[in-house]
Amino acid sequence: MILEAAVLYIKQGQSDQFESDFIKASQYIRLIPGYIKHTLQKCIEQDYKYLLLVEWEKLEDHTIGFRQSEVYNNWKELLHHYYEPFPIVEHFQTVH
Amino acid sequence: MILEAAVLYIKQGQSDQFESDFIKASQYIRLIPGYIKHTLQKCIEQDYKYLLLVEWEKLEDHTIGFRQSEVYNNWKELLHHYYEPFPIVEHFQTVH
Repeated sequence: MILEAAVLYIKQGQSDQFESDFIKASQYIRLIPGYIKHTLQKCIEQDYKYLLLVEWEKLEDHTIGFRQSEVYNNWKELLHHYYEPFPIVEHFQTVH
Repeated sequence: MILEAAVLYIKQGQSDQFESDFIKASQYIRLIPGYIKHTLQKCIEQDYKYLLLVEWEKLEDHTIGFRQSEVYNNWKELLHHYYEPFPIVEHFQTVH
């Protein structure tokens, strides 16, 4: 299992719309082979900060399977305009 | 449920020892009322970077219950000397 993690900073005042569009966008990521589950978490200490966590069977399910899919365009169109700055996405392996 | 998240940067060359001590330290956090589960994730793209995720029933189970417990001293002694810089710990609530 690979954990994709991205800290998201949402443009001021757009949190509610972002959360609503994120739920719409979730339908697209679920279609990808190797997708296991995902969650969006909202930070308590900092407004407009979120943590996106996605579990994939292997790294390429995200970096190739999702990013080169047709539905990635739908995901991008729904979500990417909310981010400022554009997020750094990283991948993790379970130690414990 | 509250998700505690901390990005950890481990001093160069100390990853193996840190991972071993993290497993030892895990016995302490599990004792705290309100603890649900935790995981340590190692970054694929950046050496010495980890993501610690802990699920708690409520915020105070971590900020008071754990941090003011006696076993927190054991956790600190085992782990805090590995961090550089000292991590920022934040808490998140599930949106989706």
